[in-house]
Amino acid sequence: MNIGKEFRMSRLFRRDSRRMVLITIDHGICIDPMKEINDPAAVVRKVAQGGADAVLLTPGIARLVYREFLGTGTSLMLRIDGTATSVGPDLTNDDLISSVESALRMGADAVATFGVIGVPREAQLSQKIGMVSDECDVWGMPQLTEVIPSEILTHQFQDRADRKWPSDPEIVKYSARVAAELGADIVKGYYTGDPKTFKEVIEYCPVPYVVLSGPAGGDPQAFLKFVQEAIACGASGVSVGRNVWTYPDPTAMTRAICRLVHEEASVEQALKELS
Amino acid sequence: MNIGKEFRMSRLFRRDSRRMVLITIDHGICIDPMKEINDPAAVVRKVAQGGADAVLLTPGIARLVYREFLGTGTSLMLRIDGTATSVGPDLTNDDLISSVESALRMGADAVATFGVIGVPREAQLSQKIGMVSDECDVWGMPQLTEVIPSEILTHQFQDRADRKWPSDPEIVKYSARVAAELGADIVKGYYTGDPKTFKEVIEYCPVPYVVLSGPAGGDPQAFLKFVQEAIACGASGVSVGRNVWTYPDPTAMTRAICRLVHEEASVEQALKELS
Amino acid sequence: MNIGKEFRMSRLFRRDSRRMVLITIDHGICIDPMKEINDPAAVVRKVAQGGADAVLLTPGIARLVYREFLGTGTSLMLRIDGTATSVGPDLTNDDLISSVESALRMGADAVATFGVIGVPREAQLSQKIGMVSDECDVWGMPQLTEVIPSEILTHQFQDRADRKWPSDPEIVKYSARVAAELGADIVKGYYTGDPKTFKEVIEYCPVPYVVLSGPAGGDPQAFLKFVQEAIACGASGVSVGRNVWTYPDPTAMTRAICRLVHEEASVEQALKELS
Amino acid sequence: MNIGKEFRMSRLFRRDSRRMVLITIDHGICIDPMKEINDPAAVVRKVAQGGADAVLLTPGIARLVYREFLGTGTSLMLRIDGTATSVGPDLTNDDLISSVESALRMGADAVATFGVIGVPREAQLSQKIGMVSDECDVWGMPQLTEVIPSEILTHQFQDRADRKWPSDPEIVKYSARVAAELGADIVKGYYTGDPKTFKEVIEYCPVPYVVLSGPAGGDPQAFLKFVQEAIACGASGVSVGRNVWTYPDPTAMTRAICRLVHEEASVEQALKELS
Amino acid sequence: MNIGKEFRMSRLFRRDSRRMVLITIDHGICIDPMKEINDPAAVVRKVAQGGADAVLLTPGIARLVYREFLGTGTSLMLRIDGTATSVGPDLTNDDLISSVESALRMGADAVATFGVIGVPREAQLSQKIGMVSDECDVWGMPQLTEVIPSEILTHQFQDRADRKWPSDPEIVKYSARVAAELGADIVKGYYTGDPKTFKEVIEYCPVPYVVLSGPAGGDPQAFLKFVQEAIACGASGVSVGRNVWTYPDPTAMTRAICRLVHEEASVEQALKELS
Repeated sequence: MNIGKEFRMSRLFRRDSRRMVLITIDHGICIDPMKEINDPAAVVRKVAQGGADAVLLTPGIARLVYREFLGTGTSLMLRIDGTATSVGPDLTNDDLISSVESALRMGADAVATFGVIGVPREAQLSQKIGMVSDECDVWGMPQLTEVIPSEILTHQFQDRADRKWPSDPEIVKYSARVAAELGADIVKGYYTGDPKTFKEVIEYCPVPYVVLSGPAGGDPQAFLKFVQEAIACGASGVSVGRNVWTYPDPTAMTRAICRLVHEEASVEQALKELS
Repeated sequence: MNIGKEFRMSRLFRRDSRRMVLITIDHGICIDPMKEINDPAAVVRKVAQGGADAVLLTPGIARLVYREFLGTGTSLMLRIDGTATSVGPDLTNDDLISSVESALRMGADAVATFGVIGVPREAQLSQKIGMVSDECDVWGMPQLTEVIPSEILTHQFQDRADRKWPSDPEIVKYSARVAAELGADIVKGYYTGDPKTFKEVIEYCPVPYVVLSGPAGGDPQAFLKFVQEAIACGASGVSVGRNVWTYPDPTAMTRAICRLVHEEASVEQALKELS
Repeated sequence: MNIGKEFRMSRLFRRDSRRMVLITIDHGICIDPMKEINDPAAVVRKVAQGGADAVLLTPGIARLVYREFLGTGTSLMLRIDGTATSVGPDLTNDDLISSVESALRMGADAVATFGVIGVPREAQLSQKIGMVSDECDVWGMPQLTEVIPSEILTHQFQDRADRKWPSDPEIVKYSARVAAELGADIVKGYYTGDPKTFKEVIEYCPVPYVVLSGPAGGDPQAFLKFVQEAIACGASGVSVGRNVWTYPDPTAMTRAICRLVHEEASVEQALKELS
Repeated sequence: MNIGKEFRMSRLFRRDSRRMVLITIDHGICIDPMKEINDPAAVVRKVAQGGADAVLLTPGIARLVYREFLGTGTSLMLRIDGTATSVGPDLTNDDLISSVESALRMGADAVATFGVIGVPREAQLSQKIGMVSDECDVWGMPQLTEVIPSEILTHQFQDRADRKWPSDPEIVKYSARVAAELGADIVKGYYTGDPKTFKEVIEYCPVPYVVLSGPAGGDPQAFLKFVQEAIACGASGVSVGRNVWTYPDPTAMTRAICRLVHEEASVEQALKELS
Repeated sequence: MNIGKEFRMSRLFRRDSRRMVLITIDHGICIDPMKEINDPAAVVRKVAQGGADAVLLTPGIARLVYREFLGTGTSLMLRIDGTATSVGPDLTNDDLISSVESALRMGADAVATFGVIGVPREAQLSQKIGMVSDECDVWGMPQLTEVIPSEILTHQFQDRADRKWPSDPEIVKYSARVAAELGADIVKGYYTGDPKTFKEVIEYCPVPYVVLSGPAGGDPQAFLKFVQEAIACGASGVSVGRNVWTYPDPTAMTRAICRLVHEEASVEQALKELS
């Protein structure tokens, strides 16, 4: 790895646990309006207080709320693609809207991109990830790539939805590896639904695998249990959005997640943060 | 925000009211010939006299009439896309015709672009807005992005049409947020038809929202009432074209609008400017 | 306008009349072989002798015959698009074949491009014109844009054809304005067939409008009458190709046109040049 | 013309005759394997010995065999397009595979490109030729453009085929002119089948026209007769591949061609070189 | 050839034998998950120990495991395309994911690309190879191009499959030549199934031809026999992936292959390495 990437990765992944709690607030493009992110600055403030290691934002929002990051120890991760909306014709038509150089100018510690294999646009998406990786290598900027199984795409971009696991763990595994081969420094992907196959995903993925939590479930205990299970399987962290900021106290929820991820606390211990 | 953007934004939005009266004269491309803009220099002269904060022009016209701006306190806003005409096959095939650097060379205080979500070309449009935003950030140039609900596209580009509101306020809200996430510094969009939903649009839009007035209605009082209602809901200004320059005295009409927008005058007070 | 454009425009438009006689010899790409342009150098020589203000050529021909221009006071105008032939699938698929920088290197006083609205490729064509305009502004190079109503496209690119006017003057007017808004410094377009509507075209076009004469008609007197009528309506000049060089004495015909355009001579006076 | 082009053209066209004998060995991409070009270095060596003025090669082969050129007086002409094969879907999908700058680095005296009018891809092909021409002008590199009537495309790329002339001489004439207008410095094209129409082709083509010989015919006398006829009509040289290197003694055949082209020898005199 | 290419080629091809043993571990993108490459660093370590001359990796993996190369004498070959997966719509939609410059920065001794002729995307693939070749020439970087007959594409990207030879040796020959003409410095391609036609392939290919072994067969003796046969026909080396690393002892298998390739050992001698 190069110097710049090591510096920036060291700000994303906590020194002791080698894991990251990433809070995502980049839903304004891909999901119908949700009132909980009316005020993105407030959300950033709350999750930074809760100890989030990084917050994922699009460039427009990052420029507006960056002051919330200053002095908090929370990193900015910049979403540099995002051309598809939930009312548009194709959720996989997700091209660049910004650049690695913009992320550098903003002081971000990583860029984030999106990919899907097995769909008509897979070549376009893979080329994007590869070319961003080339640019990241030049500038010492880590790239996190989110991979979603195509069968679960729509579910992922719904406002509210019952939890649903990909039917085929192999595609979760395959997607993660493709992202890593293309040059992603961190992969963000699904849980498979059971520890055995999820461990195989992590073994086949040669870079840190951060598990995403998807639509808000409404049951904090079930959610925290999922986080703990994923971490126990070897995930290098979690990526949470709706499950944090639709919860009445996002600071507490972030703190609860941090306890599971960084301290390997029990679900019971984590739940205490919510009371 | 960066220095250049703050300087330029301060010339668009009046110091006291923090609002902008934008007069648009960029209809030559997207709407069939209208005799009222035969002489764009005269229109600029009249609305600058009326106190317009900015005038929106395409590059060809801006180069011809720029002298009308000099010493007036009125800013030039440059439309840098515009490849679709009202006789063409697709009003959303709206690509760049100029650049942020051209706007800089011309001394413009903002660039303007156009976007629509939920249409086949949404990715192309969003990528354009995002990439212009990247460029704007480098140069300190604000970007205003106009968003139109797809159902109302044709209506918007007709010469004369009865007022028509989007049937779904959520799409107005969603469109505005997408533009802001992509990096628009100002959003120009529709009124929803009622104050309650319009306030929600403004709350969900993290940047100044300037309301557009659409085709000329013919009833000045109804038009001014609409302006006042939108401002009362929290709009950061208005964008008016046909309703100003198809009115017999564009200077007076601009002055009337300014009273509503900057002084929060009553409709009755504003009407006095027209008599 | 900028210094470079003013210098170059002053070489195209004669000082006293503020009008231009443009002779076109760029038919080698878009029209089937015509023996009269077997020797383009000879044609340039003859029309320069007749007093042509500018000659329109493609880059390949310009490089071969440029010596004919030296010391004549006739300007080179460089056609920088031209990818469609009369045997090809689409006369509107007309992309760049050269560049503003090539025109600069050659010492040309203008570049020429081609556009059509209301056709499937209108966005491609408009973007081309806009981007060339941006480049022209950087280099101080004027752009002439030819606009053709789509209904008359085929007619225009036939070798021999009866004169035919566009059925709708509004589309002539609309096309010219679009070209000017996109940044054309000179518009070249059709006559509408009658003075009343043609005057409206010229009023709505904020830059000089040069009228084109189309396929050769065979009746010099009728042709000269058309030129005089167009000039009387306010056209800033004429663009003539086949009507000059299929005439037995192109020098005399150019001289006759010049008398109408620059001296506002009568058709009878102009005809004397041909005898 | 510019200095670089004049220098390089002077190495292609022999000083006394003003004509060129071009031997082509670029068939590896567009035609099924032919054992006679198993060893391209040997072919270059033999035809250089025979007095070829230039040899046409693709970049991959040029890099391997360039030493055969050194000190021979034979120029390298670099084929810089070539993306279509005889087993592929479209022989006109012929895009760039290299560049004018590569040709410069290699010490080539010309680049070669390929074009066809009247086919769906004509705009793509014409734009390629035009843009290469722009680049050639900057670097002083001549461009030879090969034009093939669409009706005869398949025939041209067959290994063995009976001689076949285009049914319409006008398309040969039109194609050549288009290439020259786009900026080709040399046109390579078909013989029309009879002297009268071929002379018209040459008259309408304002740059040197080099005639191509197509698939090998098997009858040396008939072939040499064709060469002599084309030269007598005014062709500026010949472009021969299969007719030279499928002949048992390519050196002798090249010598025979040179006698016809440069010395205007009779077919009988030329035949003596083969005995 | 240029200096940089000669230096790098000298590290790929062993001095005495002039041949290369290339081990490929770039299957993570194009083939479903295979547990044997869970730990690519371990595979690199083992095959480097076995004497592999080069290992083929994608950029993402290369950055992670590069330390395994240091001091071993084994070269890194970088796969710079790879946008198609085995679950995607088209295995030939294989665009660039990285660049020659990235390979340079990483210290790679070659880049690898992929091509197919006779398929709808042949022009896209050929242009890619040609343009990479241009870039390689500038930087002195060798390019290996893998060519696969279209009829055998799917077979090649299956995890397990019975050995299958292309039905037409001519297409193997044609593909190899096209790659070389486009500028590949090394061709990687199929064995034809019999020595006679394979020798013809090698004769028609003007650059070193490295034979690929395809899906793992399960019978080491048959595999080694195939290697020996190909070398005996004149292949400049072998490219082996699954047949090495699905074998229980990849170090031994690499050593066995090296004996055949570099020492021209008998299959029996080579088999001793496996016992």
